[in-house]
Amino acid sequence: MTVYAPPLKDLRFVLHNLIGLDRLAALPGFEHVEADLVDAVLDEAGKLLTDVWFPLNRTGDIEGSQLRDGTVVTPAGFKDAYEQMVQAGWLGIPFPTEYGGGNMPATIVTAVTEMANATNPSLAMAPALSQGALDALLEHGSEELKEIYVRRLMTGEWTGTMCLTEPQAGSDVGALTTKALPADDGSWRIQGTKIFISFGDHDLTENIIHLVLARTPDSPPGTKGISLFVVPKYLVEDDGSLGESNDVKTVSLEHKMGIKASPTAVLSFGEEGEGSVGYLVGEERMGMRYMFTMMNNARLAVGLSGVALGEIAYQNALAYSQERVQSRPIGAPEDAVTPIIGHADVRRMLMTMKAQVEAMRALTLENAFALDMARNHPDEETREQYRLYADLLTPVSKAWATDLGIEVTSMAIQVYGGLGYIEESGMPQFYRDARIGAIYEGTNGIQALDLIGRKLPAGGGAAIMGMVGNMKAIDGELAAAGDRFNSMRTLLADGVAALEQATGWLAMNGMQDPNQAAAGATPYLRMLGTVAGAYFLAKSALAASKLLEEGSPDKEFLEAKIDTARFYAEQLLPLGTALLGPVTAGKETLFAIDPDQMGH
Amino acid sequence: MTVYAPPLKDLRFVLHNLIGLDRLAALPGFEHVEADLVDAVLDEAGKLLTDVWFPLNRTGDIEGSQLRDGTVVTPAGFKDAYEQMVQAGWLGIPFPTEYGGGNMPATIVTAVTEMANATNPSLAMAPALSQGALDALLEHGSEELKEIYVRRLMTGEWTGTMCLTEPQAGSDVGALTTKALPADDGSWRIQGTKIFISFGDHDLTENIIHLVLARTPDSPPGTKGISLFVVPKYLVEDDGSLGESNDVKTVSLEHKMGIKASPTAVLSFGEEGEGSVGYLVGEERMGMRYMFTMMNNARLAVGLSGVALGEIAYQNALAYSQERVQSRPIGAPEDAVTPIIGHADVRRMLMTMKAQVEAMRALTLENAFALDMARNHPDEETREQYRLYADLLTPVSKAWATDLGIEVTSMAIQVYGGLGYIEESGMPQFYRDARIGAIYEGTNGIQALDLIGRKLPAGGGAAIMGMVGNMKAIDGELAAAGDRFNSMRTLLADGVAALEQATGWLAMNGMQDPNQAAAGATPYLRMLGTVAGAYFLAKSALAASKLLEEGSPDKEFLEAKIDTARFYAEQLLPLGTALLGPVTAGKETLFAIDPDQMGH
Repeated sequence: MTVYAPPLKDLRFVLHNLIGLDRLAALPGFEHVEADLVDAVLDEAGKLLTDVWFPLNRTGDIEGSQLRDGTVVTPAGFKDAYEQMVQAGWLGIPFPTEYGGGNMPATIVTAVTEMANATNPSLAMAPALSQGALDALLEHGSEELKEIYVRRLMTGEWTGTMCLTEPQAGSDVGALTTKALPADDGSWRIQGTKIFISFGDHDLTENIIHLVLARTPDSPPGTKGISLFVVPKYLVEDDGSLGESNDVKTVSLEHKMGIKASPTAVLSFGEEGEGSVGYLVGEERMGMRYMFTMMNNARLAVGLSGVALGEIAYQNALAYSQERVQSRPIGAPEDAVTPIIGHADVRRMLMTMKAQVEAMRALTLENAFALDMARNHPDEETREQYRLYADLLTPVSKAWATDLGIEVTSMAIQVYGGLGYIEESGMPQFYRDARIGAIYEGTNGIQALDLIGRKLPAGGGAAIMGMVGNMKAIDGELAAAGDRFNSMRTLLADGVAALEQATGWLAMNGMQDPNQAAAGATPYLRMLGTVAGAYFLAKSALAASKLLEEGSPDKEFLEAKIDTARFYAEQLLPLGTALLGPVTAGKETLFAIDPDQMGH
Repeated sequence: MTVYAPPLKDLRFVLHNLIGLDRLAALPGFEHVEADLVDAVLDEAGKLLTDVWFPLNRTGDIEGSQLRDGTVVTPAGFKDAYEQMVQAGWLGIPFPTEYGGGNMPATIVTAVTEMANATNPSLAMAPALSQGALDALLEHGSEELKEIYVRRLMTGEWTGTMCLTEPQAGSDVGALTTKALPADDGSWRIQGTKIFISFGDHDLTENIIHLVLARTPDSPPGTKGISLFVVPKYLVEDDGSLGESNDVKTVSLEHKMGIKASPTAVLSFGEEGEGSVGYLVGEERMGMRYMFTMMNNARLAVGLSGVALGEIAYQNALAYSQERVQSRPIGAPEDAVTPIIGHADVRRMLMTMKAQVEAMRALTLENAFALDMARNHPDEETREQYRLYADLLTPVSKAWATDLGIEVTSMAIQVYGGLGYIEESGMPQFYRDARIGAIYEGTNGIQALDLIGRKLPAGGGAAIMGMVGNMKAIDGELAAAGDRFNSMRTLLADGVAALEQATGWLAMNGMQDPNQAAAGATPYLRMLGTVAGAYFLAKSALAASKLLEEGSPDKEFLEAKIDTARFYAEQLLPLGTALLGPVTAGKETLFAIDPDQMGH
């Protein structure tokens, strides 16, 4: 039996004190984003998710989605739980009002998405995939395509998928072979097999809109020859009603270690006839670029699953550690006993979980805020600056937060001890569910390569230099904030100096030999995430200190913010700083041994 | 479909070049331990385990052990696979010849146990538990008990269990309430419920010998009032035949995340009558001490499961990375592709796995060798010195190796990408099976507390000081070994200096306030493991260098040893060294926040 309470207090703290709701509300189009509205959104979404989605999380894991007679059946209750979110209008909140959306800033949507991923990560994937499809259609689709598909994807009446992967084309999307042939009526005929298609089939909605990458005739090989198509499960008649089946067959479902309620399908397009009917999105051979539009929000959303599973795992571990009485505290009389939270090593685990969740939450919300600024700020230069910043943060949100999600859910198992290994405790599911985050939407290794290869050098390194500058800029405030901030200040300065040095090394050496930079990509991403986490927590602590000075009544919570930042700086940050060595050690030892000589 | 080949080459390298078989063979009683014998043992055990145990690993995971009509049924084939090991005499090899054992050194047994844990970690638990029972009986049992139970446990004809845990008594063994009342015939009557009993019931053998901790009348509370009893599942008649059932009931089996073929039972003793018949082991109220006899070897064995699952995960990841072609190498022409082992980030993962497996293997074999010296060396002072050393290494073998086992199996999933999350790939099972290692036989947090609270100060700190001295002593050799050893030398020196400083800090501050030391226990254990790993790999590299100079024909393997040690020093060791900060940061930030204020 697991517990969950929406982390409203911490979400509000970040939104108000790290991001600044006023900065959001100052953006054209977001004038309605006032504190009361945001409070209502978080309250109501949190309540619905906790009441309706959360109770199905474990039953969904046990039952799983099943393929029966060619159709996917989701676990009992899922269809109703999905529909309740649709009915309440939650799925449309990220989208423009012109198509019936709620026009909520990404920052607020991110807070809601975190809660969805905590209460039911399998079910939370359905709207996340729709959002990817919608982003691509809104940005690149024709008015006709938008008219037919966007509204019903937006409300959640239909869902979307992203059909990229094929058996020979995983990380290497350019190796895909699915074919698209032009038809006389301007549409296309799609033939091929796609694998690992999340919510590729299900019974939540009447139609499913597949966004399919395929190769048109005479296209160049590799990613330059890829185009993006809309392929509905059922064709849509002119009056908007559903027509005949579009020859999209669910071949099989995968047996996964986690997120078992989320169906992962092998889909065969156009197996029986001339091909499934597809409609080109945007221009031919631009599919790879459009794919990144689909994936970018998805990457942040995957990162949120790390925050979310970390949060729920932490909540349960914290509750258990307060109930479970075991052993006497060190130094106490022989017959004394304590809830295990009284033991130093348990407290270390809990504080690590707490600090990491708060650091991840701050980073992902900052990432979302950067997206809002990049889209809505009136000044073009500012928009571009924030676009670079959001681009820089996205692979970190995705990879660092999912890696930490795995670590934090593992710690919850550890706090539970033997019980944590028993499925009924719920802890194994959090851990199993969290593990996919490091893999899909581009493995964390791919994220690290994206970070060092594309995001660091973009705009002449403006984003990373800006970020390092911001980190340095709080040094004076930390110095002035008193003794409790001393270790934070010193250790953050060490971390930022190491980050700067590592960044410089990658830039210098990567220019001469990209493999030198690639060799350090993964430790660099971890380092950036860890140092950024320390920075956001230090900022939180400064904000808390200021509120305390102003006489805020929320004394304990704000004091805890300062203590958490200090814990992070002393206990977790040094391992980020120490990655300077591994980042700059270069490729030599990685490649020294011939692959044939690597066995034991 | 997973693969496994016994890592004979690496095992032999460690046995010959790090441990020195001649040092083993020089011990009284081990004169027979010659290279040919050891080769034959490793070859034959490896072959039987690979041929018979390994094919059942995944089917065992799918089927699991089941409770049917009050009896546990193990997965298809398990009984036969177990019997083949019994028939071939493998289960008796660790034990004295006087009871029919094979009198093999712990060092050699450890190598065999590693392979057993790789091929079928669930089944490998059965003999591991028997060994715990045997160790206790051999050391503390009466001649009568030995006569009845030892031979048949030793051959594997029967198996043993360790019945410690109760719902309210997990890490706090002293809280147990199972009762033992004296009977007229000198035996005892046991009543109580034990949980988490591995192989508490099964169909592998005709009888099961439970070693049960219970409380005799008028015993003091806590661990001082605990006694140890032998409680057979079926009573044994004077002629050695099986008598009636001893009222040990299997109440239920746990649904675990992994090691699913291994039955984890709730056992009820003496529920139906006056109590199960039990026989006191040794003296009354000495049960806690005897328990440590049972657990000590078990802790090393659990550590071996980390090495073993790391090894098999590495083998599979390595093979997959050589088959799976995906994307072009950085800097290669547009249409070039490579097996993924050609990518820097994949190679980083593989090298990390390789280096960590070799470091764990060296540490656990060293630990076993220290046990052999402690038991068989003719000189009492030397025995005592090695006993302290073995005691120091045991919690590190257990906790560090199981933590790394989880990390290495997780990396195998990552190398496989999406396929790694699919159960059919076999990678999830390795990861799920590995996760228990950090929990049972004393959680890794308990190991860390044991390390800093008991093992560091024992003998006036002789063992840790000796170990640090050994680490420093190879500095000259590293300096003389050439440029390839430069980074290894410098980074090892940094690591050893940090370890020494951390050790001193714990000693000083722990004396004044044990919670200060407890706060740093977990990072200290990780630090010691990491630095020791670097030391053992550096020693391996020096040995390899010497063999190369001597013209050994095994050039590539030996060169790889040097490259692996260098990789470890440059890429992994710095994270151990950096733990100096966390170890010495003290308890303040851990306990700063009131438990009631820790929520979000």
